[in-house]
Amino acid sequence: MNFNSFSFRIRYAETDQMGVVYHGNYAKYLEIGRVEWLRALGITYRSMEEGGIMLPVIFLQINYKKSAKYDDLITVETVLKKTPSVKIEFDYKIYNESRELLADANTVLAFMDMSTGKPIKCPDYILEKLS
Amino acid sequence: MNFNSFSFRIRYAETDQMGVVYHGNYAKYLEIGRVEWLRALGITYRSMEEGGIMLPVIFLQINYKKSAKYDDLITVETVLKKTPSVKIEFDYKIYNESRELLADANTVLAFMDMSTGKPIKCPDYILEKLS
Amino acid sequence: MNFNSFSFRIRYAETDQMGVVYHGNYAKYLEIGRVEWLRALGITYRSMEEGGIMLPVIFLQINYKKSAKYDDLITVETVLKKTPSVKIEFDYKIYNESRELLADANTVLAFMDMSTGKPIKCPDYILEKLS
Amino acid sequence: MNFNSFSFRIRYAETDQMGVVYHGNYAKYLEIGRVEWLRALGITYRSMEEGGIMLPVIFLQINYKKSAKYDDLITVETVLKKTPSVKIEFDYKIYNESRELLADANTVLAFMDMSTGKPIKCPDYILEKLS
Repeated sequence: MNFNSFSFRIRYAETDQMGVVYHGNYAKYLEIGRVEWLRALGITYRSMEEGGIMLPVIFLQINYKKSAKYDDLITVETVLKKTPSVKIEFDYKIYNESRELLADANTVLAFMDMSTGKPIKCPDYILEKLS
Repeated sequence: MNFNSFSFRIRYAETDQMGVVYHGNYAKYLEIGRVEWLRALGITYRSMEEGGIMLPVIFLQINYKKSAKYDDLITVETVLKKTPSVKIEFDYKIYNESRELLADANTVLAFMDMSTGKPIKCPDYILEKLS
Repeated sequence: MNFNSFSFRIRYAETDQMGVVYHGNYAKYLEIGRVEWLRALGITYRSMEEGGIMLPVIFLQINYKKSAKYDDLITVETVLKKTPSVKIEFDYKIYNESRELLADANTVLAFMDMSTGKPIKCPDYILEKLS
Repeated sequence: MNFNSFSFRIRYAETDQMGVVYHGNYAKYLEIGRVEWLRALGITYRSMEEGGIMLPVIFLQINYKKSAKYDDLITVETVLKKTPSVKIEFDYKIYNESRELLADANTVLAFMDMSTGKPIKCPDYILEKLS
């Protein structure tokens, strides 16, 4: 329940002239990780936004260990760190097909009411799925 | 009035592992070209959107002649092709510092009312600037 | 042999403040289309580059019909237009899950020897797969 | 010598459907900050790479305080944290035109010999500029 694993291929557009994935693109991979964690829970982030709640990132930290390469099938492992409150925190590990650790990362996101722009508590329908 | 020239540097993030700018990024350069053309006219696209009009791209064509490289100071030349109606059409040329032609391009955009999602005519405040 | 279909989800990072996919991102979707067409043929673009051949885009044209939205599962249909020579040309259609046509597009790419930077003919191992 | 400030405009392509800059794009802004710090020192990162040294990011941390918006003229302030060795560390602050702090950040990069792929010490020509 607190863990999800999701795999996908590195796109050419995501490389840079170092011949590996541009480091800034990992933020997108983490997002895919947590969105798929949420989907596995039976909730889509799309429906959350349609319901008036958005979840901006307020903290991002990435340790780069080894480069991801074009066409690699990478796996993002997403772990919910604790029961979400007004914030939700995830740890991530990204692996390549040889199970080499490419990066570990952490993000904190804040639940926000889109109509008021104010922070709110984690919606009950998420907390119920987690308990 | 129908022409504007704008220069900026290629960012590292915009390269790919061919060692040159990823071809898909040129769409962003064309956008910078037409936005700066509009700014030179005394109008910001931001204020247009705040006024309820948006301008989605409905046609894009790019001929790639020569690669743009990291840190190149490129120049986008934007030409309004004709008086805008419900659509607005631009031609572009992109040059590097040695005045080599990197690409020529064409885009068509449609004026759209953001509240209704319907096409509308080019706002008068733009037509007045052009006459 | 001349056709391939590939589906994937729109990422949040690919949207812009119009609330739909940023038009420039379609270039990446077309690339995924032709890369997966090639993979279905039994060849990876990665191995082509490792073998010293690259395939820069020299022409891109996109007609935007309808917006792609966040989390849409879109399908890119890729059609090889004719037997490749020094160039290879593809037509594309992009659909959403309701089978609405979002865009049609065309690209031309050139086979290039990475060591000399010169155009070359389509490698025989591709032509053989196509015959 | 240890500080540089650089300003540029937010591009439309950098927004997402929250109506603000996509959080992952800040990595690109930090890169612009340190590249311009280096340029102000009289060195281009492009010439460093041409000289066989590259500088991959090995650590990235960003605290998001307030959203950057389309067409904002933002300022990235880059501070070299200490004399570089095999690594180089920067702190950053990003402000909007109203001098509101949008984000603070930290990155660590490693000097790497491109021919061997091994870490190396900061080149003397950089250390001399700093002393």
